[in-house]
Amino acid sequence: MKESNSNSTGVKEIARLANVSIGTVDRVIHNRKGVSDETRKKVNAIIEELNFRPNKMASLLARRDQVNIGVLIPKTSSETNYWSYPLVGITQAVDELKQFGVSVTHFFYDLDSKNSFTTASEQILAADLQGVLLAPSFIEESLMLTKKLTEANIPFVFINSDLPRQESLSYIGPDLFQSGRLAAQIISMMAREADDIFIVNISTELELDHHLLRKEQGFRKYFEEHNIANTILTLNINHTDNQSVKKQLSKALASAPNARVLFVTNSRVNVVARVLADHPQKLILIGYDFIEENIRCLENESISFIISQRPKEQGYQGIMALYKHLFGLGDAERTNYMPIDIITKENFHYYKN
Amino acid sequence: MKESNSNSTGVKEIARLANVSIGTVDRVIHNRKGVSDETRKKVNAIIEELNFRPNKMASLLARRDQVNIGVLIPKTSSETNYWSYPLVGITQAVDELKQFGVSVTHFFYDLDSKNSFTTASEQILAADLQGVLLAPSFIEESLMLTKKLTEANIPFVFINSDLPRQESLSYIGPDLFQSGRLAAQIISMMAREADDIFIVNISTELELDHHLLRKEQGFRKYFEEHNIANTILTLNINHTDNQSVKKQLSKALASAPNARVLFVTNSRVNVVARVLADHPQKLILIGYDFIEENIRCLENESISFIISQRPKEQGYQGIMALYKHLFGLGDAERTNYMPIDIITKENFHYYKN
Repeated sequence: MKESNSNSTGVKEIARLANVSIGTVDRVIHNRKGVSDETRKKVNAIIEELNFRPNKMASLLARRDQVNIGVLIPKTSSETNYWSYPLVGITQAVDELKQFGVSVTHFFYDLDSKNSFTTASEQILAADLQGVLLAPSFIEESLMLTKKLTEANIPFVFINSDLPRQESLSYIGPDLFQSGRLAAQIISMMAREADDIFIVNISTELELDHHLLRKEQGFRKYFEEHNIANTILTLNINHTDNQSVKKQLSKALASAPNARVLFVTNSRVNVVARVLADHPQKLILIGYDFIEENIRCLENESISFIISQRPKEQGYQGIMALYKHLFGLGDAERTNYMPIDIITKENFHYYKN
Repeated sequence: MKESNSNSTGVKEIARLANVSIGTVDRVIHNRKGVSDETRKKVNAIIEELNFRPNKMASLLARRDQVNIGVLIPKTSSETNYWSYPLVGITQAVDELKQFGVSVTHFFYDLDSKNSFTTASEQILAADLQGVLLAPSFIEESLMLTKKLTEANIPFVFINSDLPRQESLSYIGPDLFQSGRLAAQIISMMAREADDIFIVNISTELELDHHLLRKEQGFRKYFEEHNIANTILTLNINHTDNQSVKKQLSKALASAPNARVLFVTNSRVNVVARVLADHPQKLILIGYDFIEENIRCLENESISFIISQRPKEQGYQGIMALYKHLFGLGDAERTNYMPIDIITKENFHYYKN
């Protein structure tokens, strides 16, 4: 690995100096077509100048014929099958890439347990991996892992949520702050002046789940910027089972008789829809993720809007970014924000997730 | 062409009888890999049974090395550059396919003149084309053209709007009725009980433009189904210049003091936004198409929502469908509805049109 890594750096350096793409350098080294004579001369001159040995390099490049990528994402829970969607994208990418020697090893953790994340991290560090794709749900625990990956020279890509200022190759996922703003815009257009608005965060590891908090920040920022006077209340629910959600929601709603709109910051919006089924007043519900349970709630009109951020594509592009990097085919942008899609009962049929 | 056509029918027939894809038959005929021995035997048996001459067929297939596709779409007007987007998709497809002998000839018409459509139709029928991609904006005129294309055995694909019960290979575009329903859902959630709602149709050939009328039907159906009591008014504007739009809008709004929401059924929503700039009351505007002028109006908040239906993809997929058909690589579904995307100020940055 070491040798191959420094070789990849060499190719990059040559590309930079010659002001051409890594692919072009690769074509020159392998004596393939599609490069002008002028460019070929320029690249070869730089290779000579740097005392690189292209034949040696070519054989090294060719030797990278097997890479194993570790995938660290939450397991699908009984409350939401959200994480089955990135998995579909990951599997699709690996199906396309296995002919080039790409395989993955899966490490799942429990979104309701940071300990399970730490355990999976240890397994990752003990395994023989050439790259890691991870959803860094817990900040501190993720930082500990990525620090060690950086030390071991193992490239990693974030999906679902980002940890800025890390040595990650790339982030592929939503702009969480912006998606909170979008929810705020939609709600601001529907809410009457007298309506109170609830932001509902449901997570057992809430204080650690920056994913939800960024959305809330974006939401509040929009209302602030537009001087909209509605009262915005936050309801944090630390137990994710139906009974606990029901109990805490009922209590909160009883003390806020003007609440008419609820923004649930993750895919558990369908749990809220269910426990509100016998609520005396019709409430407007907005939440996240194009998953089966939520689609059913769109159909029966208990949820009005779902925000979806292409989970399948995140998984697919995440694997592709690692593949391209590991095989010297170019690096993805540092930050790749997914489209923020608005899904309702009237357009979900044609939505290609 | 004739010979090649009947040959293509033969391949289809073999595929049907063998219960395999056209691609598989093609692989057997050309003795290419990727077919099991069992399938190969089955296909060859049917070829023998039908007394087809695969070698002759192979050479015929190989002879189809140049196809020219006619493209009949509106030209970009000074009021909207909508049609530049399908054109980008068409050009992209042709760039990918030109190595396989695909070229296009463009025929543009003026959306404000059905005569220009008829003239372009005559040019199409006089040209040597192997397929036609068209936006059938005018029903009667389109039917006259497609009847003659069918007689001449020239396959055609519709984009942007469909003409049902025609011999078209495929329709690739929006479900117009459903997109009207979606607009209605969004508006129904924002409108107050006392608000009147305007449906604004802007077109010089309005009585012929079924594209707009289908959206209005879907819109009204949604309100009817949900027993929503708001008054819905229709405003048809037959002149598309700013002055005429302004004059007719002002008059209509003066006689409907409760009007607060306007649904403009095409991309000319930005014209409405401009003429309403000095309107005393803040009105909510919803319209169609992710084009430059509309994006600017999202930014300055004069338009709240834009519905977009992947114009680039329509053009791209339309050419691809004809290519695959003409080269015997399989036929697209008869109806291919595009996703109906909702775009606002808060998510347009990440929208990949």
